[in-house]
Amino acid sequence: MSGLSVVCPLDWRYGSEEMRRLFTVEELVRKYIEVEVAMMAGLEEAGLAPRGCAEALLECSRGLSASEVYAREAVLGHDIASLAYILGEKCGECGRYAHLGATSYDVVDTAWALVLREALGIVRRKLAEVINELSRLAVEHRDTLMIGRTHGQHALPITLGFKLANYVYELSRSYERLRETERRLIRSKISGAVGTMAGWLGRGLLVERAASERLKLEPHAITTQVAPRDGFAELVADLAILASQLDRFALEVRELSRTEIGELYESGARVGSSAMPHKRNPVTAERISGLARIARSLCVAALENVPLMHERDLTNSSSERILVPHALLVADQMLEDALKLLRVLAIDREAMLRNLALTRGAIMTEALVVRLVEKGVPRHLAHKALVEVSRTVESGVALEEAVLRHELLSKYLSPEEVREALDPSKYLGNCRELIDRAVEYSRRALER
Amino acid sequence: MSGLSVVCPLDWRYGSEEMRRLFTVEELVRKYIEVEVAMMAGLEEAGLAPRGCAEALLECSRGLSASEVYAREAVLGHDIASLAYILGEKCGECGRYAHLGATSYDVVDTAWALVLREALGIVRRKLAEVINELSRLAVEHRDTLMIGRTHGQHALPITLGFKLANYVYELSRSYERLRETERRLIRSKISGAVGTMAGWLGRGLLVERAASERLKLEPHAITTQVAPRDGFAELVADLAILASQLDRFALEVRELSRTEIGELYESGARVGSSAMPHKRNPVTAERISGLARIARSLCVAALENVPLMHERDLTNSSSERILVPHALLVADQMLEDALKLLRVLAIDREAMLRNLALTRGAIMTEALVVRLVEKGVPRHLAHKALVEVSRTVESGVALEEAVLRHELLSKYLSPEEVREALDPSKYLGNCRELIDRAVEYSRRALER
Amino acid sequence: MSGLSVVCPLDWRYGSEEMRRLFTVEELVRKYIEVEVAMMAGLEEAGLAPRGCAEALLECSRGLSASEVYAREAVLGHDIASLAYILGEKCGECGRYAHLGATSYDVVDTAWALVLREALGIVRRKLAEVINELSRLAVEHRDTLMIGRTHGQHALPITLGFKLANYVYELSRSYERLRETERRLIRSKISGAVGTMAGWLGRGLLVERAASERLKLEPHAITTQVAPRDGFAELVADLAILASQLDRFALEVRELSRTEIGELYESGARVGSSAMPHKRNPVTAERISGLARIARSLCVAALENVPLMHERDLTNSSSERILVPHALLVADQMLEDALKLLRVLAIDREAMLRNLALTRGAIMTEALVVRLVEKGVPRHLAHKALVEVSRTVESGVALEEAVLRHELLSKYLSPEEVREALDPSKYLGNCRELIDRAVEYSRRALER
Amino acid sequence: MSGLSVVCPLDWRYGSEEMRRLFTVEELVRKYIEVEVAMMAGLEEAGLAPRGCAEALLECSRGLSASEVYAREAVLGHDIASLAYILGEKCGECGRYAHLGATSYDVVDTAWALVLREALGIVRRKLAEVINELSRLAVEHRDTLMIGRTHGQHALPITLGFKLANYVYELSRSYERLRETERRLIRSKISGAVGTMAGWLGRGLLVERAASERLKLEPHAITTQVAPRDGFAELVADLAILASQLDRFALEVRELSRTEIGELYESGARVGSSAMPHKRNPVTAERISGLARIARSLCVAALENVPLMHERDLTNSSSERILVPHALLVADQMLEDALKLLRVLAIDREAMLRNLALTRGAIMTEALVVRLVEKGVPRHLAHKALVEVSRTVESGVALEEAVLRHELLSKYLSPEEVREALDPSKYLGNCRELIDRAVEYSRRALER
Repeated sequence: MSGLSVVCPLDWRYGSEEMRRLFTVEELVRKYIEVEVAMMAGLEEAGLAPRGCAEALLECSRGLSASEVYAREAVLGHDIASLAYILGEKCGECGRYAHLGATSYDVVDTAWALVLREALGIVRRKLAEVINELSRLAVEHRDTLMIGRTHGQHALPITLGFKLANYVYELSRSYERLRETERRLIRSKISGAVGTMAGWLGRGLLVERAASERLKLEPHAITTQVAPRDGFAELVADLAILASQLDRFALEVRELSRTEIGELYESGARVGSSAMPHKRNPVTAERISGLARIARSLCVAALENVPLMHERDLTNSSSERILVPHALLVADQMLEDALKLLRVLAIDREAMLRNLALTRGAIMTEALVVRLVEKGVPRHLAHKALVEVSRTVESGVALEEAVLRHELLSKYLSPEEVREALDPSKYLGNCRELIDRAVEYSRRALER
Repeated sequence: MSGLSVVCPLDWRYGSEEMRRLFTVEELVRKYIEVEVAMMAGLEEAGLAPRGCAEALLECSRGLSASEVYAREAVLGHDIASLAYILGEKCGECGRYAHLGATSYDVVDTAWALVLREALGIVRRKLAEVINELSRLAVEHRDTLMIGRTHGQHALPITLGFKLANYVYELSRSYERLRETERRLIRSKISGAVGTMAGWLGRGLLVERAASERLKLEPHAITTQVAPRDGFAELVADLAILASQLDRFALEVRELSRTEIGELYESGARVGSSAMPHKRNPVTAERISGLARIARSLCVAALENVPLMHERDLTNSSSERILVPHALLVADQMLEDALKLLRVLAIDREAMLRNLALTRGAIMTEALVVRLVEKGVPRHLAHKALVEVSRTVESGVALEEAVLRHELLSKYLSPEEVREALDPSKYLGNCRELIDRAVEYSRRALER
Repeated sequence: MSGLSVVCPLDWRYGSEEMRRLFTVEELVRKYIEVEVAMMAGLEEAGLAPRGCAEALLECSRGLSASEVYAREAVLGHDIASLAYILGEKCGECGRYAHLGATSYDVVDTAWALVLREALGIVRRKLAEVINELSRLAVEHRDTLMIGRTHGQHALPITLGFKLANYVYELSRSYERLRETERRLIRSKISGAVGTMAGWLGRGLLVERAASERLKLEPHAITTQVAPRDGFAELVADLAILASQLDRFALEVRELSRTEIGELYESGARVGSSAMPHKRNPVTAERISGLARIARSLCVAALENVPLMHERDLTNSSSERILVPHALLVADQMLEDALKLLRVLAIDREAMLRNLALTRGAIMTEALVVRLVEKGVPRHLAHKALVEVSRTVESGVALEEAVLRHELLSKYLSPEEVREALDPSKYLGNCRELIDRAVEYSRRALER
Repeated sequence: MSGLSVVCPLDWRYGSEEMRRLFTVEELVRKYIEVEVAMMAGLEEAGLAPRGCAEALLECSRGLSASEVYAREAVLGHDIASLAYILGEKCGECGRYAHLGATSYDVVDTAWALVLREALGIVRRKLAEVINELSRLAVEHRDTLMIGRTHGQHALPITLGFKLANYVYELSRSYERLRETERRLIRSKISGAVGTMAGWLGRGLLVERAASERLKLEPHAITTQVAPRDGFAELVADLAILASQLDRFALEVRELSRTEIGELYESGARVGSSAMPHKRNPVTAERISGLARIARSLCVAALENVPLMHERDLTNSSSERILVPHALLVADQMLEDALKLLRVLAIDREAMLRNLALTRGAIMTEALVVRLVEKGVPRHLAHKALVEVSRTVESGVALEEAVLRHELLSKYLSPEEVREALDPSKYLGNCRELIDRAVEYSRRALER
């Protein structure tokens, strides 16, 4: 209930605890300390600090809390400086070597790398769950017949499995992107003020290597005083694309749960609908669509952070304090919601079949043309006949009947052939193979 | 220190307490109750609830806390329904009339109007302070000479007062915009489900009028189930424009405090600079520039909220829970920072004069051409002569000397005339009147 | 067909000729000349140019083409300087006074004001047409019954007129905004380099006043070397909001023309649908939705243009060359499309009634509760009974029948009362008055 | 000069001819034909069209112009349908098989893949040129001493080579991103209406494979009626990141060419500066910064295109007609400008040295602390001494002198040691190795 005195829904309402924890100030301070310890290991390796100091610092900093650091920050106005100060005070001789030759953003950016590695781990795990659940459903419903829609209009038959397999493929592409981004983003930045490593007396590469190895991070090839910001922009863009894909799926569910359509819907009771049981408000899907807008909007700020001045300016700092946790927590909530949506998703096959029949066969005219051409009818004649027949359908007659009544068409096609040609389940092309291909694609993407 | 367990800097680090309080869940619940009471007054007026019920509800709801409501929400999954339920339970016979004929967004959107009225009051008050302080400085420094810069290059002399008066004008335009937006945004939405007022038996206009009057709000002319979202988009755009103007001022300070320029800077000590006393890191200005990016980015989400489906969909809900408080709190922090920046702003007149002399008079060539044309020299000849003279200046000679050495120029201008023509303080055009005009403009804008 | 060698659809495919013409380079040069002539009139007035020079310049520049100017620009690299140069060359003695004391952006920004005044005139005229057509339809269909939808689900009955009146109100708010923006945006910028008017020997205010009066423009209170960019950002935001409102209307049409719904649709034949006459692809509405995304995206660039450095930098120039014409032409095309959409909009009242009946009365449960409470049934009992009845409806029984069968309900309500209570046309609340209020609101907004 | 009657600067002013050509309607039609021919080859392979028809179609379509297609489109209202119609009319028996079983977006999306493959080829080639030129300069200036700046303030010495090497690294990351995006984006979409391949009688995979091989494209694993739009969003985001990196470099040049700094500038004469030779307006760099805003803004539209409805809606169409060519042409112009900027970039080493000395040694205090700690002075004592000394420097004394006068410091350091410790060229850390690492990184990235 502590959420009631806060203003940001990401502090209580949206996002999982495991993700939120990563971005609390307390956790950030823990990561800062982890980086300071790793840099101490680097200093040891480079002969710039006595052997054993990394372990001593680790030991001594165990009890150090974020509130101590921020009590000091209230005086000094700088969080990393406060931490370094406290380490120097508390950790004896070794403490004096803490942060030696380093700059604040060695700590901040390397801590971001540690946080984001975990955060992306969570995102990927949940995304993989969504993809796998969609794959499972795609295979399960590979033959569940429904109408395909373009422009909101009935077009040609598809299967539910085919529809879902498209999301499997699309989301797998996001998984790939995140993997590729990680290689650029999750890197250590240990290079001191302005990035030259000058404070380490020519032994900077040793400090960097040892510290990075301890943290299991690859270092950036070169940096200014800060890591390049294109990595953050790429991450936020990846997440905005992912959010837009989930938005597409949410929109799918929202539309297909319309009262007139009713093919898919979120099952489960909700207040307000007790007296309106006909209402199947797709509230989870709507939340996904709403949050996608926040995800998209954050791209703009992330891109504007790229052009920092010279060896750095501070403008990325306030902006990233907001945008980095918000981008990750919004993505996290959206993935949680997508999983929930898949869990509660009800599928009404009867509605699918009812809708499929709604145009009295008009959706099958293309199939009929294909069949006629196969039979040797010149394409333009087949097409012309179909236009005539379609007009009859418009006036309320079923297509099958209209075809059988038509002079030319009935000459080429037996009643049985007409029936088969108009059977939507016979006009699914390579749906099954395409589903397999999508699932296979995802399998390989998730393995990377 | 409670901020350390939260992830959003707007929950502790950025934004004033008075602004933050407005957007806490606790305060929102208080506003919800205020709206429920006002609607009860409307029901009374329309004869749909017994007389006295509004006051009874007011009385009974006094002790009601947000945590009670959200404990219920955990069960019902809907905050306004939970509130109505609790009122019905706790407030006797009158309680049963609570929320009668209303829909959740009657409460939510009207509460937003109440919250935003206060929030905009704060924004306007602080913006007026910034404008007034800038006006004061503009008048004080109406004759403080400095170089005007275009493309980052020295162009023509201006005064500091003139520079600041431009910000006075620009920010006053934002003040106007916010005033105009208020008339569209701060309105009651009391029209029931789908907006037809059907639950009030034809007496909806009476309910709406009495409730709105109690809340001192003008109602929307018509609504769907929710108030139109263009008002929110307009507000967020206003704030993004304001943020971008403050960003422009912050950029001014950041640039003018460069080591090589040093005309303006943030005074006041900061850690890290003790051993680097030459560093005057413009950290407040940099924070303004950083937060402006967040302000700009929120526009995108606010615009995407406008196209809701039919009589409403829920997608604006999650999006606005984030974007509305964030837009206001970011603006609030930026205004606080702008005020702070103005308070600590140091002005180095010597640096201004030193920089003015940097091009050895080259900035005054336009003034010289004007003077020569006045003397009857054909403009192209004057220009040609100046190009020749300027080349001499390039090689290190001061402009004054070069002019006096030049055959044609020395014929038309006496040494005294040259000196006067090259005096930057004599080439300020209508600076003083323009400053007055800007200050006068702001005075009228703030009166509205 | 000349469009085939260009890449931007705004150069041939989208936007009206009258709007496109305004933004061609040719027209911009005409406006530049108009400003130069007005500034000459100002110089005359201030005694800085001989009497008669404005008329002489006007006369002399009549034959001057954009291609002459840009042939020179190819050499000089600057369009306004090229124009001034040509005027000086071609227009005798008066020509030598052309551009005296002025800076390029006196011409560019004042020309923008002239162009945008015309462009906004076009936008407002077309927007008024859209609003008026919507008002006409709203009044015509004030009693055309249809279902109101929330979350894509059937909620309560409304009328088509009520639905459309919401758009009347929303769009009228955009009209107001544009009017208000004009007062800040459409202003002359005549203040010379860095904005001090120094080139006019203290008589700058005279030059500015006379030139502005000739152009029928109010001057900015103060400027740097350029007009403040917040005005452009406000304009682009206004247009993005308008675009998003049109997007909302387009989405309404797209959804209501779904095969399963069919209440509204774009009439008129299209290729590809000849053999699929059941397809009513809402292509005009879809184009509106697509272009709205471009309109929204331009906001970002317009906002980023606000924080120019010092007395100016040039970064707004390239950006505005793209964003200003694109924002106006996209808005223009969207308004044209909205008008077209309204012209071809087919309304299927039968479909509306059919859909209204789809839930077999379930949408009327709220109406029934209201009626029961009116009859003295305690609200919670009424609600409980309805829940029971609704379950029966779920199983396929019509609501009316279910109510009549219900013990409690049938006791309180006669069959006739039940029939009336379940008649959607009797549960429209204040629809008619709200439509009137919206139309009245628009009437007053358009008069401003 | 034909540009004068158009409104979009990308149609004449910005972008190279080779890039512009790709996006003209004429070229798009050529690509459409190429795809139709490839699909015919697919039909042949699948036994759905007679052998030889692909070559016949290729032959017959050679003379076909875009204007023919668009003359027909004026009637039919659909470009691809018009093309298919014309091919059917003109190309004999084989013509009748043209487009058999296909949908418009098989052609449009596969043509986009062909266009974007070429467009990205151009982007990558120019980006590689920029990176290589920056690498060359980085190596050339690996020892060119200058001040590093943070917060716009002098921080520590760097070299110009080090500064540039950061851009080498950053831009190489963009190169990588584009490479990775290509693998997802440049794919054929040959799957017919709704994506099931139903029109090809179960032989769709054969059609797809043969057509794709002819076009040297990998097919998408599965699609709806259109290719997934996340690929476009990714591309536009990549280009926006690249644009923001170039913006960062442009900002670097703009700032370093300030009158007070003058370390880098754009050489080459420009009108307007003839009488103001001191002005070195960084106009190319400013154009880069301006266009970067357009690039960033397009992301928003590209992201919004991702959530298409069901098997497709048309909203991406109008939006992409604008955003795809604009994103590529803006990137193209920015890369051209970056190359131009590098060509005309003047480097003033004297200004660099002059600025380096500006703080009279204060920038070297960190170096001195490091040296003292090395000598065994406890860090806090060294720091304290430096603070004292720095105060002296503030009052106008050079650091070297102040140190030698200081009791404690002069005890630990000989005059020679002081001189060396204060020599900026001795405090460059691992600049050289980091430059090498960046150049090596780019080499490997460009090889991919």
